[in-house]
Amino acid sequence: MLQYSESLDLAFHALSDPSRRGMVERLTRGPASVTELAEPFAMSLSAVVQHLRILEASGLVRTEKLGRVRVCQIEPKALQNAEKWINDRRMLWERRLDRLGKFLAEESNEKDQGSTS
Amino acid sequence: MLQYSESLDLAFHALSDPSRRGMVERLTRGPASVTELAEPFAMSLSAVVQHLRILEASGLVRTEKLGRVRVCQIEPKALQNAEKWINDRRMLWERRLDRLGKFLAEESNEKDQGSTS
Repeated sequence: MLQYSESLDLAFHALSDPSRRGMVERLTRGPASVTELAEPFAMSLSAVVQHLRILEASGLVRTEKLGRVRVCQIEPKALQNAEKWINDRRMLWERRLDRLGKFLAEESNEKDQGSTS
Repeated sequence: MLQYSESLDLAFHALSDPSRRGMVERLTRGPASVTELAEPFAMSLSAVVQHLRILEASGLVRTEKLGRVRVCQIEPKALQNAEKWINDRRMLWERRLDRLGKFLAEESNEKDQGSTS
């Protein structure tokens, strides 16, 4: 079992390559064999397999041998974890901005009241 | 101006390192000087600056020289883009699952009706 931080390292690393993002994109529309997955890419099958290994190691994609065909499918959990990490940080940041906005509004109210009294 | 795909490459690459994620996390709580940012990390200031360069190049962090201090702050746009990319894929995948669920439910209804008529 990967540690949370290590699994984020691998997921973000896997997503940092446009071909691998293309493969994830393809698999969100449904499972595919390695050959189907390779089709839209101008690269050798072995390069595709390399990318697939990185996607598998990151937990974003699961592959399974069905008869003679290796079928690839998305693993939503790792995608969710990566999204959640970013979302949590963005929320923190937005809450901070809200607090800052409120503080400045109160400050300016106090000043206004001070100048009219 | 970075292309959308290239900026995703850089953002996900920047987020694939635990120290850089730690720096983003720190900056979501408010701006910090380079020295403040370096404080919790057991690494040299020059290693911190290296990480900071990667964060700046990715658009996740902006730094600005204020007098003699370099102040770092979060740039929410790049964080939003990375989150949106993952979210869009996850939504596609969930919609596909919903359709699949509906299809299977209808199929099983039809079978039930077939067996009782």
